[in-house]
Amino acid sequence: MSKICFQKIRITEVGPRDGFQNIKHHIATEIKIKIIKQLIESGIKKMEITSMVSPKAIPQLADSKEVINEVLTLFPNLISHVLVPNLKGAQIVYDLGIRHINYVISVSPAHNKANINRTHEESIEGMKVIRQDFPDMDFTLSLATVFGCPFIGATSLYILLKLIEQAHQVGINAITLCDTIGVANPAQTQQILTILKNEFPDIDIGMHMHNTHGMALANMLVGLNNGISRFETAIGGLGGCPFAPGAAGNAATEDLVNMLNRMGYETDISIPNLLLCNETIKQYVEPNLLSSLSKARLYDEFNFNAKLLPIGE
Amino acid sequence: MSKICFQKIRITEVGPRDGFQNIKHHIATEIKIKIIKQLIESGIKKMEITSMVSPKAIPQLADSKEVINEVLTLFPNLISHVLVPNLKGAQIVYDLGIRHINYVISVSPAHNKANINRTHEESIEGMKVIRQDFPDMDFTLSLATVFGCPFIGATSLYILLKLIEQAHQVGINAITLCDTIGVANPAQTQQILTILKNEFPDIDIGMHMHNTHGMALANMLVGLNNGISRFETAIGGLGGCPFAPGAAGNAATEDLVNMLNRMGYETDISIPNLLLCNETIKQYVEPNLLSSLSKARLYDEFNFNAKLLPIGE
Repeated sequence: MSKICFQKIRITEVGPRDGFQNIKHHIATEIKIKIIKQLIESGIKKMEITSMVSPKAIPQLADSKEVINEVLTLFPNLISHVLVPNLKGAQIVYDLGIRHINYVISVSPAHNKANINRTHEESIEGMKVIRQDFPDMDFTLSLATVFGCPFIGATSLYILLKLIEQAHQVGINAITLCDTIGVANPAQTQQILTILKNEFPDIDIGMHMHNTHGMALANMLVGLNNGISRFETAIGGLGGCPFAPGAAGNAATEDLVNMLNRMGYETDISIPNLLLCNETIKQYVEPNLLSSLSKARLYDEFNFNAKLLPIGE
Repeated sequence: MSKICFQKIRITEVGPRDGFQNIKHHIATEIKIKIIKQLIESGIKKMEITSMVSPKAIPQLADSKEVINEVLTLFPNLISHVLVPNLKGAQIVYDLGIRHINYVISVSPAHNKANINRTHEESIEGMKVIRQDFPDMDFTLSLATVFGCPFIGATSLYILLKLIEQAHQVGINAITLCDTIGVANPAQTQQILTILKNEFPDIDIGMHMHNTHGMALANMLVGLNNGISRFETAIGGLGGCPFAPGAAGNAATEDLVNMLNRMGYETDISIPNLLLCNETIKQYVEPNLLSSLSKARLYDEFNFNAKLLPIGE
């Protein structure tokens, strides 16, 4: 086990985008900034801070330009990602100073249509145009419904492979596998990762898991055991998917960081600080958090953190 | 992955003991029997049905004799386990017809004292006497606080090994590792299982995990990958520990069975039936269940069950 103790794990906090967009009541921009600040103070270095989408589709993120401006001004060292659905969105965020974008295609054609109202061909064309027009933007492709779709059930591994190949052909090497409805199981995760690492050994695979069936940490453990080092999580286990009925929240940042810290991985993220951030979220955003750690006793008065059992004491 | 698809997993349902004992309000014996019946109808074949403890210590299980009598009469094919703390308890359950007992020693001396008011020497002596006096009883030794203790923090692997050796010497080969407070992490689980399988290759190791930090399924996945095939879980994620402050519920039966079924393991346990049992528990025992599946949408209208992704469709 000693080898893995030195692997650096990259966590992208997606609460301010995937989490907030699912909150029904209005969250003031200053509260969003306050939470983003607390996340940075916890050690978060990469964050999806908002989404450049129509305020009609997602009213909660209508302040995206303001959030971007504030974050870039206040936290210049944060690696700020923004989700963009199209060329227009990419242009807007580029002009605001964003250099890291996330673009989503659902492996399920039905979910792609429901989520972003496009065929696969239209989505791929949009991806290529953005990639060509903004060569200096760091581009991550998120593939939704990799592990299952609320509309069609099992999704096609062949389509998944074709989508990755087309991204690869235009120089996109960061691919995030999303379990949009949280039904992935560890055998399925192992199967998909084995195939992808065989077919595309040089891509940077990330995982974005939801915890609907309680298996998010187990699936991410499979990822870790397969060398995956990039994970997207949301503080408090916030999240869901407006176009995936019944999907529970994202894997919680504090739950993954807790697992990683106790296993001996380096995250440089502080659990006590994440729990402080939880308190802010409970006060202003959502009183009932889904994460385990938001409800658990830590037992850290005994210095449990990342300790393996000693022999002989 | 094909090898594991044929491994048979043995699940011991512990909700009627570990779950019910943590419920504050009185549960009528007939409700307990109703729930036990539904669990059997779901496919559960082994169950810890009660504990032969002092009604002063655990008033909820004051009807243990009645439960044993009813279960043995109504469900003769169930493998009925009873937790016994001492020789007197073993004699009582033996006379009632029970042939499967579970005996608990905490690896943490402080927790052993708080939980059963004994030193390790006293606990070991009690174990030996019961083993000798009832040679035809199937004897499982549960080792509590293997992964951490609420009183002393990290527990001793050396004490764990010594306790297993002493059980082994008197012919006890079924050892259940209990994460009493739910803080085990996958690296720790891997480390302990590696050592135990090396030191005691012929013992039947079981796992009894709590889900305080949300890692129960991840830890049990590590168990599966190490050939562990015996797991104790509680319907609804009921449970805790009266002498382990802050410990959350057990790994939920429905969450483990769901993971196993989807991974392709054979459990012969029906998720829809377990969810029916959840409804009974919500009505009579505890309205707020901790399991993921009790809150989740199953998406089984799409026949997700145990299906891996096909190529090309």
